[in-house]
Amino acid sequence: MPIRDVKLGKDAKVVYPGLVNMYECEVGDRCLIGPFVEIQKDVIIGNDCRVQSHSFICSKARIGNSVFIGHGVMFVNDKYPPRFDEKHWEEIIIEDGVTIGSNATILPVRIGENSLIGAGAVVTKDVPPNSIAVGNPAKARPRGS
Amino acid sequence: MPIRDVKLGKDAKVVYPGLVNMYECEVGDRCLIGPFVEIQKDVIIGNDCRVQSHSFICSKARIGNSVFIGHGVMFVNDKYPPRFDEKHWEEIIIEDGVTIGSNATILPVRIGENSLIGAGAVVTKDVPPNSIAVGNPAKARPRGS
Amino acid sequence: MPIRDVKLGKDAKVVYPGLVNMYECEVGDRCLIGPFVEIQKDVIIGNDCRVQSHSFICSKARIGNSVFIGHGVMFVNDKYPPRFDEKHWEEIIIEDGVTIGSNATILPVRIGENSLIGAGAVVTKDVPPNSIAVGNPAKARPRGS
Repeated sequence: MPIRDVKLGKDAKVVYPGLVNMYECEVGDRCLIGPFVEIQKDVIIGNDCRVQSHSFICSKARIGNSVFIGHGVMFVNDKYPPRFDEKHWEEIIIEDGVTIGSNATILPVRIGENSLIGAGAVVTKDVPPNSIAVGNPAKARPRGS
Repeated sequence: MPIRDVKLGKDAKVVYPGLVNMYECEVGDRCLIGPFVEIQKDVIIGNDCRVQSHSFICSKARIGNSVFIGHGVMFVNDKYPPRFDEKHWEEIIIEDGVTIGSNATILPVRIGENSLIGAGAVVTKDVPPNSIAVGNPAKARPRGS
Repeated sequence: MPIRDVKLGKDAKVVYPGLVNMYECEVGDRCLIGPFVEIQKDVIIGNDCRVQSHSFICSKARIGNSVFIGHGVMFVNDKYPPRFDEKHWEEIIIEDGVTIGSNATILPVRIGENSLIGAGAVVTKDVPPNSIAVGNPAKARPRGS
């Protein structure tokens, strides 16, 4: 079944349950999950988040509150795949209020609160809070600068 | 339902109606829509277009005739997401005869007729007609130069 | 039907047969195919490969053994699409032991054995064996250098 052992928060919504693959994960209150999304086991997503269509969130991702994940965003937990032993996988931490643009790729990093990741960015390093990061590899600068 | 209130032109075809999400949009004559495609409300697509698998076309996109949209292409209508009030969204205009390569990301821009957007390009600025644009951010040059 | 005329090897597994589009292709023994994957006709995939979610493998791709294809990877067989006559399409050769990172884009090239393509890379040129290639366009260097 495409949705298995998912803890869905209050008023959270999966737009098309038959068009996602979600298992053994937690999704907070009032979240919205679009079609063609995969969320793997052990992922924890906070409240008031959106995961837009075509995005993939891997094991070891921890997502805060009010995070917006655009379309076609891919998370990566293994810098030298494929290593099927989980001990090689690294955490990806997305703090509160982060926005991730469409088609971005997120390696195992921490993205600080209220940062904006540009569409198509490939994020290979930690991003400080209140930053904008764009490009491949992504370079961060303070928001508003 | 994954297809709702869609005006499909003559001889237009959605290859797998159960594997798309299309709503309140118009698709012209003889178009072909692949699997795992989402097309949002108010999108207008001209005649003789193809939207290949895994692509996402957002509200505010206007697509001309004979446009080819590759696989995994993501359109973006909001430069500073998430803003849920539509007044912040900007138009994306794709003129006749444009080709968009796979995994490209299209911000709110106008792409002039007969231009070619390279695979993986991130298009953040308008592209003149008869151009090739590649890279992240994409840089345009005349076709044939 | 989303799976049609596919030759699946021994112990190969398509995780969700209703959430893929695969036709007239061969997949070797012990392969794993994730959800939201499209594999076109004439593709040949060797043994012990994984094709992760959201990836698209086009006609003219020949994939060796023990190849890992991440999430959201797009293969391209036509440098100047759309040309619907197959005579314009070029081969993509992925040798044994290659790993392709998520959201990478693979133009018609040969990727040599045991090479690693970084997440988000746009591969426009051949990659020698035992290389790492990252960026847009991707640049290759020897692994371990």
